[in-house]
Amino acid sequence: MNDRTHAGNVSEKKAAAVSAVSLVRDGMVVGIGTGSTAAYAISELGGLVADGLDIVGIPTSYQSEMLALQQKIPVTTLSEYPEIDIVLDGADQIDQNLVAIKGGGAAHAKEKVVAQAAKRVVLMVDEEKMVSRLNHTVPIEVLPYAAAVVDAQVRAIGGIPSLRMAARKDGPVVTDNGNFVIDADFGVIDDPERLNHEINAFVGAIEHGIFLNVDEVHIGAAGGAKILKR
Amino acid sequence: MNDRTHAGNVSEKKAAAVSAVSLVRDGMVVGIGTGSTAAYAISELGGLVADGLDIVGIPTSYQSEMLALQQKIPVTTLSEYPEIDIVLDGADQIDQNLVAIKGGGAAHAKEKVVAQAAKRVVLMVDEEKMVSRLNHTVPIEVLPYAAAVVDAQVRAIGGIPSLRMAARKDGPVVTDNGNFVIDADFGVIDDPERLNHEINAFVGAIEHGIFLNVDEVHIGAAGGAKILKR
Repeated sequence: MNDRTHAGNVSEKKAAAVSAVSLVRDGMVVGIGTGSTAAYAISELGGLVADGLDIVGIPTSYQSEMLALQQKIPVTTLSEYPEIDIVLDGADQIDQNLVAIKGGGAAHAKEKVVAQAAKRVVLMVDEEKMVSRLNHTVPIEVLPYAAAVVDAQVRAIGGIPSLRMAARKDGPVVTDNGNFVIDADFGVIDDPERLNHEINAFVGAIEHGIFLNVDEVHIGAAGGAKILKR
Repeated sequence: MNDRTHAGNVSEKKAAAVSAVSLVRDGMVVGIGTGSTAAYAISELGGLVADGLDIVGIPTSYQSEMLALQQKIPVTTLSEYPEIDIVLDGADQIDQNLVAIKGGGAAHAKEKVVAQAAKRVVLMVDEEKMVSRLNHTVPIEVLPYAAAVVDAQVRAIGGIPSLRMAARKDGPVVTDNGNFVIDADFGVIDDPERLNHEINAFVGAIEHGIFLNVDEVHIGAAGGAKILKR
């Protein structure tokens, strides 16, 4: 998880971002993901907007809103556009069925809302995020009130919960939505669809990091990107 | 919904509260519900605590915390007691299978967390809340960011969504958790368990008002209460 800004992957992340951004057309409403790879995509989009590309963006976090505004990309909200054309986002881990785990940046709840609203969900990653079997911890955004009760629900289905602690602030991470994050370790996840349903039924949980509706993945490599489609 | 403080039901609500509070024993951790009937229970509990009953309460809202503190009931949190003995709460509508719809007071998310943590979930109502078929609107607490996207998801399964607007403040109701409430009208709800699963899968929704884990209902009447058990 801590290689999110690993210098060695910068060129791969940029290649993935450039490949995904090439899908954006004039007139599109674009969901703008969060994280280091999304930041490259925002920078790339900003260059195209400066050259005349006519889009509006819907950020998924304070981070992506700040970066979009720096790049002078017009931003709006899902209240104006509850259906959007495309979302470009990163991921922490993706398997060969295009099931992704997201939420290392604690932005997965809004990212999931935007993905739900999007006609086309495009993820951008470097090669090391691709795995044959998912085993990343699953971030679960929870009501602070419910943290201990979600902890018990994670244990009840065999997971090991860990309340995510903050850096640069005392105590737990507080999300852009004002909630906590529990990182749940399920080891190798044999059936992510079943786990998705189990966590959806958790009381006090807002959104978890398993994404089942990914349409395509752009995997950065030296000199370009490989594209996997559903 | 607007008969929550109807004078004609006061004696029934009090009778239900007295009956439910009689279940509380020394040493119990008690979930304290929200709303007009729960307020009678808190008052009744306060009298027993003044007489020496030894309990701690876990409030489900600012309202129930304020009332508990007024009554000098010691309060604590789910972080101290993630498992609790009993919760006493009201409801907006209950059917003969003890499926309840709650959330008229916008407190249903925390109420549901406490119910999840409780060994025994006890609801207190007046007779007119009991129905043969549920047809109350289902309150859904949603991330403000996701309101338009949840609206679309309600419509997609045949419901009519309505963003709950506030009184005594401009714009929408904001819950104790900082979120919005969408009241979703599904007409007569033939299969509340199915609807529960469908709304659990909504992206951007936090908790909805369908409660499936009610253990008993105390229905206030002149001179006492009728008790239904699962």
